[in-house]
Amino acid sequence: MTLNTINIKEKFSMFSKYWSPHVIAEMNDYQFKLAKIKGEFIWHEHDDTDEVFIVIEGSMNIEFQDGIVDLSEGEMFVVPKSVAHKPFAENECKIMLVEPKGVINTGESEGEMTASNDVWI
Amino acid sequence: MTLNTINIKEKFSMFSKYWSPHVIAEMNDYQFKLAKIKGEFIWHEHDDTDEVFIVIEGSMNIEFQDGIVDLSEGEMFVVPKSVAHKPFAENECKIMLVEPKGVINTGESEGEMTASNDVWI
Repeated sequence: MTLNTINIKEKFSMFSKYWSPHVIAEMNDYQFKLAKIKGEFIWHEHDDTDEVFIVIEGSMNIEFQDGIVDLSEGEMFVVPKSVAHKPFAENECKIMLVEPKGVINTGESEGEMTASNDVWI
Repeated sequence: MTLNTINIKEKFSMFSKYWSPHVIAEMNDYQFKLAKIKGEFIWHEHDDTDEVFIVIEGSMNIEFQDGIVDLSEGEMFVVPKSVAHKPFAENECKIMLVEPKGVINTGESEGEMTASNDVWI
């Protein structure tokens, strides 16, 4: 095993593309991913899994059919599986996602916003 | 579903006991737990799962048979399953743990440091 720690803010300096999750750690069959987001994402859902959002820096929103969640630095939210949601951020926001390995960022709505999977930094 | 966000630092104000993980969120069959730690924990391992440590405030160490990991605020570490480890913190440190529901804090070494499980705040 390696004794290297993972510095979350340092990892953010290693990429710049928005809406492009990068894996920083794996625990069993789950992954911790970092993403920089700005602007609107697309409506989508994940049929097989919940999805955790943790805001590391900045603020963002997640729109649901029932309302909008406002997330600031140091806050987290669990999007339940199969629930349609649309993330957006007025200004650049840095987030950590936790979800099973293999989950696609656009869920059941693949298209031009679909990012490559399993990209480690 | 609820649209309430989880504020990690606010949750820390809701308990004070050291080495006593409190659940703040659940994702599938995994839990996110907060703990305040100070002093030495015991050597233990988790035979069935990896375990994620994320330092929210302060600093801590995890001792392994092969060496010691130093973790500061904003850093994380994945302890592989079955690997003996001993967490310790010279001063109070606030951490988030991620692991499957049902994992016992002392792993295979139950005793006086074993905390109640599934305690939500």
